[in-house]
Amino acid sequence: MATIKDVAKLASVSVGTVSRFLNGYTIKEENQTRIEQAIQTLDFKFNPIARGLRTNKTYSVGVLIPRISDIFCTQVIEGIEEVLEPLNYSILICSSNDKLELQREKINFLQNKCVDGIIAMPVTSAEFNVDKVTGNGTPVVLIDRLVKDCELDAVVADNVNGAYLAVEMIINKGHQKIGIIAGPQEIYTAQERLMGYLRALNDYHIEVNEDYIIHTQYKKDGGIDAFHQLISLPDRPTAIFTTNYPITVNTMRLMLEKGLQIGQDVSLCGYDQTELFQMLNPPISVVVQPSKEIGIQAAEILLKRIGGDFSRFPQIQRLKTSLIATDSVKTLF
Amino acid sequence: MATIKDVAKLASVSVGTVSRFLNGYTIKEENQTRIEQAIQTLDFKFNPIARGLRTNKTYSVGVLIPRISDIFCTQVIEGIEEVLEPLNYSILICSSNDKLELQREKINFLQNKCVDGIIAMPVTSAEFNVDKVTGNGTPVVLIDRLVKDCELDAVVADNVNGAYLAVEMIINKGHQKIGIIAGPQEIYTAQERLMGYLRALNDYHIEVNEDYIIHTQYKKDGGIDAFHQLISLPDRPTAIFTTNYPITVNTMRLMLEKGLQIGQDVSLCGYDQTELFQMLNPPISVVVQPSKEIGIQAAEILLKRIGGDFSRFPQIQRLKTSLIATDSVKTLF
Repeated sequence: MATIKDVAKLASVSVGTVSRFLNGYTIKEENQTRIEQAIQTLDFKFNPIARGLRTNKTYSVGVLIPRISDIFCTQVIEGIEEVLEPLNYSILICSSNDKLELQREKINFLQNKCVDGIIAMPVTSAEFNVDKVTGNGTPVVLIDRLVKDCELDAVVADNVNGAYLAVEMIINKGHQKIGIIAGPQEIYTAQERLMGYLRALNDYHIEVNEDYIIHTQYKKDGGIDAFHQLISLPDRPTAIFTTNYPITVNTMRLMLEKGLQIGQDVSLCGYDQTELFQMLNPPISVVVQPSKEIGIQAAEILLKRIGGDFSRFPQIQRLKTSLIATDSVKTLF
Repeated sequence: MATIKDVAKLASVSVGTVSRFLNGYTIKEENQTRIEQAIQTLDFKFNPIARGLRTNKTYSVGVLIPRISDIFCTQVIEGIEEVLEPLNYSILICSSNDKLELQREKINFLQNKCVDGIIAMPVTSAEFNVDKVTGNGTPVVLIDRLVKDCELDAVVADNVNGAYLAVEMIINKGHQKIGIIAGPQEIYTAQERLMGYLRALNDYHIEVNEDYIIHTQYKKDGGIDAFHQLISLPDRPTAIFTTNYPITVNTMRLMLEKGLQIGQDVSLCGYDQTELFQMLNPPISVVVQPSKEIGIQAAEILLKRIGGDFSRFPQIQRLKTSLIATDSVKTLF
């Protein structure tokens, strides 16, 4: 029975070219003609090799993120590109728009586009369609968020200690009434940041006031209702810790609109860095994530897996955050 | 001779499922078994239908941008998603990293991944591999940048009049010595913005001073050398017009570092809007592009073309910019 190698030999093209042709890719017309003739001459049948073809490398990697407009995501992607572009990998980026259903669809979609591997930021910590992923054999590296009972390589930031350092700094400047605008309870990073907040309060013997903990969505307009709730409290917090970029920006805007001076009337420590935060007056205190480094390390692990090296699986990298402390948190004594 | 329809009938699956299987996609195992049996029974050969398969829709659209970290690009993509997501199109995003060679590769890559259409922001105005694009029959809509001698649908911002309005505002506040940090001469938007600057000076009878026109790259560190050059001139400009987002941010940072107060020591008008620009003191004057609207209209034209409607081809949409005028440009009288 004729094999793909026989076809390639008779057509005087590489096995890769035949494989590309059979997979529906466009190839040079003269090669196509030669391959078609070879297939007829040899009575070559597609079916027996269908499975084998799928093991071929495509030199493309899929990246699934919740939202393309998120600066954290774009910084992670820059890191991924830094590793994969020089190796001539193509990167396919898809967005799940924070929807589980779309996440499922997009993972299927990426696999159908025959990527060699996937780097994915899961929508929630409750679900990631692992079975399909591992069943298909496409290596997957999670970023930013771990998923419960999900044995996969992952590169995340140390959110617990990132939040801890921020709240500790606020406490050390004399604040006791510290509000937090936390993310959704089902999202891993949000759980971790809240835990860091609670641990810091606990370690400094500050009683937790449930009124000071408000959950919001990780969306573009996240934190708006939460801020209004915090600021309307009879005994309102003297400092607010905002736990992602949109929440931080929205809180800043609302404070300006209400004529509240950041660092004077209410102190603020945010999350995620942009150059512009440090140009404001006062500059804004923030927890800085190693976003680009997360992308770099995720790409490196994925390459290892694509190359068939499954040592240390599942490998969880937890990268340290840093803290920029400024006058946006007032010193109270 | 057996056709794909015969295979589908015998296997009791849809023609689409057979087509997906033949193209190397993963399908349900039981369907795969049935299709494989049907192919053997009917002695069905792949070759005769290879061409026909390629005309099938994949409900995916490729988006090619120069750089994923560019806020203009991510805003455009949000517009594209707004149109295509509800129609269940998957969007594949690729970056050309501002390199012509990568642009060529990525266009090929997207076509090989069998997208129904492509929305592309070309790297330069000098080249876009049109022949391959139209030859393959994949509809392409250009965004942001037109390409010389390239007959394709396009949605761009009116950069000439955007820049004109900015420079006119600066002139009307009493400035005569106006510097511009312009983009690369081979990029369409940069050419247009420079033309707007020149037209405004001409209409207000202000002589062009070549020393005040400095070109820079549209890169992350764009404008740094250019700013130093402008600010070191013996007769330095009283106002600087920075013509994209990174140039604007870098200029602001350098002014702060040098202790130059924006709007007092040197006036500044930038390009591209972020919420944070308006939170600075003073807020920054900027030309605002209809980024999201560009994405929306490009997606709508592409859908029309995918649907086979080629009326008004090539369709060029030129969308208006707006201007935010603030105290970052000082009134001199």
